[in-house]
Amino acid sequence: MQKARIGVTGLAVMGRNLARNLARHGHPVAVHNRTPSRTKALVEEFGDEGTFLPAETPERFVESLERPRRLVVMVKAGGPTDAVIDEFAPLLEPGDMIVDGGNANFADTRRRESALRERGIHFVGTGVSGGEEGALHGPSIMPGGSAESYEALGPLLEDISAKVDGTPCCTHVGPDGAGHFVKMVHNGIEYADMQLIAESYDLLRHAAGLAPAEIAEVFRTWNTGRLESYLIEITAEVLAHTDAATGGPFVDVVLDQAEQKGTGRWTVQTALDLGVPVGGIAEAVFARSVSGHAALREAARNLPGPSRAAAAGPGFADAVEKALYASKIVAYAQGFHEIQAGSAEYGWNIDLGAMATIWRGGCIIRARFLDRIRAAYEADPQTPTLLTDDHFAEAVGDAQGAWRDVVATAARLGIPAPGFATALAYYDSLRADRLPAALTQGQRDFFGAHTYRRTDREGSYHTLWGGDRTEVTA
Amino acid sequence: MQKARIGVTGLAVMGRNLARNLARHGHPVAVHNRTPSRTKALVEEFGDEGTFLPAETPERFVESLERPRRLVVMVKAGGPTDAVIDEFAPLLEPGDMIVDGGNANFADTRRRESALRERGIHFVGTGVSGGEEGALHGPSIMPGGSAESYEALGPLLEDISAKVDGTPCCTHVGPDGAGHFVKMVHNGIEYADMQLIAESYDLLRHAAGLAPAEIAEVFRTWNTGRLESYLIEITAEVLAHTDAATGGPFVDVVLDQAEQKGTGRWTVQTALDLGVPVGGIAEAVFARSVSGHAALREAARNLPGPSRAAAAGPGFADAVEKALYASKIVAYAQGFHEIQAGSAEYGWNIDLGAMATIWRGGCIIRARFLDRIRAAYEADPQTPTLLTDDHFAEAVGDAQGAWRDVVATAARLGIPAPGFATALAYYDSLRADRLPAALTQGQRDFFGAHTYRRTDREGSYHTLWGGDRTEVTA
Repeated sequence: MQKARIGVTGLAVMGRNLARNLARHGHPVAVHNRTPSRTKALVEEFGDEGTFLPAETPERFVESLERPRRLVVMVKAGGPTDAVIDEFAPLLEPGDMIVDGGNANFADTRRRESALRERGIHFVGTGVSGGEEGALHGPSIMPGGSAESYEALGPLLEDISAKVDGTPCCTHVGPDGAGHFVKMVHNGIEYADMQLIAESYDLLRHAAGLAPAEIAEVFRTWNTGRLESYLIEITAEVLAHTDAATGGPFVDVVLDQAEQKGTGRWTVQTALDLGVPVGGIAEAVFARSVSGHAALREAARNLPGPSRAAAAGPGFADAVEKALYASKIVAYAQGFHEIQAGSAEYGWNIDLGAMATIWRGGCIIRARFLDRIRAAYEADPQTPTLLTDDHFAEAVGDAQGAWRDVVATAARLGIPAPGFATALAYYDSLRADRLPAALTQGQRDFFGAHTYRRTDREGSYHTLWGGDRTEVTA
Repeated sequence: MQKARIGVTGLAVMGRNLARNLARHGHPVAVHNRTPSRTKALVEEFGDEGTFLPAETPERFVESLERPRRLVVMVKAGGPTDAVIDEFAPLLEPGDMIVDGGNANFADTRRRESALRERGIHFVGTGVSGGEEGALHGPSIMPGGSAESYEALGPLLEDISAKVDGTPCCTHVGPDGAGHFVKMVHNGIEYADMQLIAESYDLLRHAAGLAPAEIAEVFRTWNTGRLESYLIEITAEVLAHTDAATGGPFVDVVLDQAEQKGTGRWTVQTALDLGVPVGGIAEAVFARSVSGHAALREAARNLPGPSRAAAAGPGFADAVEKALYASKIVAYAQGFHEIQAGSAEYGWNIDLGAMATIWRGGCIIRARFLDRIRAAYEADPQTPTLLTDDHFAEAVGDAQGAWRDVVATAARLGIPAPGFATALAYYDSLRADRLPAALTQGQRDFFGAHTYRRTDREGSYHTLWGGDRTEVTA
């Protein structure tokens, strides 16, 4: 009986397309789904794309796999993943691998990896980005788990991943939850990037008075320059699209309530645990949640503010481009800072430049820009922030005036630009000689005796605020 | 043998002061500490303030309490709290009460309450704010737990709480974790308030060129108006203080790295789970964490930016006052929104106006302002946001121009003002007719088939972006 090199269980659109991608690359792939009709449909529709070995039961599915077994789970994150693990793990043997390709929380992945490791089974939490199209034609793949499991899985995964300049968009991220952690931050960065694009559009629309079709042209032009990226490209497509029912711009008939699934939220919650400031990602998550609070917005609709009459002069689009590029650098710097901190916290030893490399293709944030990040980490793997890289520092330096004008214009005209504003504030905080945090710490000492350190000597001190206000060593 | 009406175990400064406060109000109080020397020291030093019943062992401590027993635990949140519960619960009987006065996470409180309820013991997670001085002279007290436990505890707690216009700063917040939840949000609001004050100081210093002593005067003046509050009062005290060692302003010798303990972070993490935008609190938490990243700041110190030469004209202090008041309204509106959402999520039925009432005295954010919030909820208990209350809407309307000028000035001069900026962006987002979230949702439909709703009819839709771009019902 022919054995499959790898198997996929869970044949919703992501799992199905990943299985087809494997088969198309010449890898015999076992396929299984809780409801067998899906398995059958896959083989009927796409059976001519390669070798599929359909299995109706978990036992058959596992039997049809080469040893060591490579079993890819593509089910909903959370309970369903645990259920599938509980079902399949007893059928596996030491050395076998379970690959979780869902959007799992990295803490769950760490728990599962640890539990399965005790049974000799490799659990490989794997980020997969690129949506259904990516899964089929080449996603960006971020596998965690043991180095040993990557030896057996890496060649297959690299084979089906996207390629940029011949380099696969897949590499071993690091042990246990590292892959899902990096995928989470990828998504957080995606939120920030999308929010900055949304603010750029809003400003061009309401401050410069351009129509969606005109703004689509602006984005098309931007996409030929340093902002070239998938997200900029599809922004132009969405803005240029006309709604058939109304004959008006598509963007004007879409309800302005953006949804979210959770990875952006996790990115911020995790950053808070790690003590990493990620204002760009947080404001993006909050902007989506504000948009969805319909009753709140309805109640607040008549609050006073400036009219949004177009007031920006010529050259404003160029200024927005600069603000967008500078803010984007900040958002990515924050995301990479979070990966650096997570790697240190969990001992993952993640190669930051390699993360930029595998995001250059396949995934939603794929962009020319990421090659600059790869180069920055190649030049200085230990840099505490991307902002000090020569290229980025120069770009932000050049963007200064325009960036500040755009933030100021948004404030004056009453156009919300929380992403641009937080990016600029972060930049100005980092480069500040002195921060007013000294006052904050002084207040903390005043009301809670939390003590403070001094600029001129070591040690912790407390001022007797309720007494004679002398200073004592804490 | 005389019995105590209530007992306190854990006699570090907060526990000791709470015990003294009880004794001073005529309530015989049993005192216990793991290390008996502390118990002894308390009785020796403060025994004449009232009736203390010292106990060396948990058994003696429990025996010395009236039935039903009221046992207040004042130990470090987390493991130590669980250890104390494990130690004392077996000694208690149904109907007895354990009051946790530490800064516990409300999720832990819910878990503990549920476990002890099964044994018939009331677990009363209680927020206590006001620091050591508050604990001694009258804190703001936020007890959760059952209504039955509040009947037995409320009179005692109200007795030792702060009073404003004769009203105690203590009320039953709601079941199980409600008290610790509200205390958490109180602290989150405190972070935001302190950050806005820090930004005000920084702007007066670097945009208006005022010296710390002059800024202290500005804050003193503000403290006679609508901003009157404990935090504004102590800001003036800290800024006016001269460092004895250098003879210079105290604020200039304090290391500008603000620390944090966790409740601010929890407030943001919980808000993210609840889908409540709390940018003002998040930016405050991030500002503290940026300040502490010394290596990052050192690396970024020479990044380009405008000089901070004082450029603001006369009237700038008044503009900052308006920006501060408007931003403060936003931060409190976000915090109260979080309480409202938490109350709905957990079925706590929290009276929002009552929370404002008990924060008017005793706690760190005590302020004249809170009476305005009480009044706003009295006028409309169901209001979705404080921003639409007549008084606040008028204040924000009046602050408009100044608020926008201050945010624009900060951006132009390179003075970080993330708190002011996020508050303004939130305000402008809420009142916007249309948000660019429509573009975001359109992009999500493009790359992930996440569907969208329309403004002109019900239902979910998807555009076949990869095909002929017709719209289908999802």
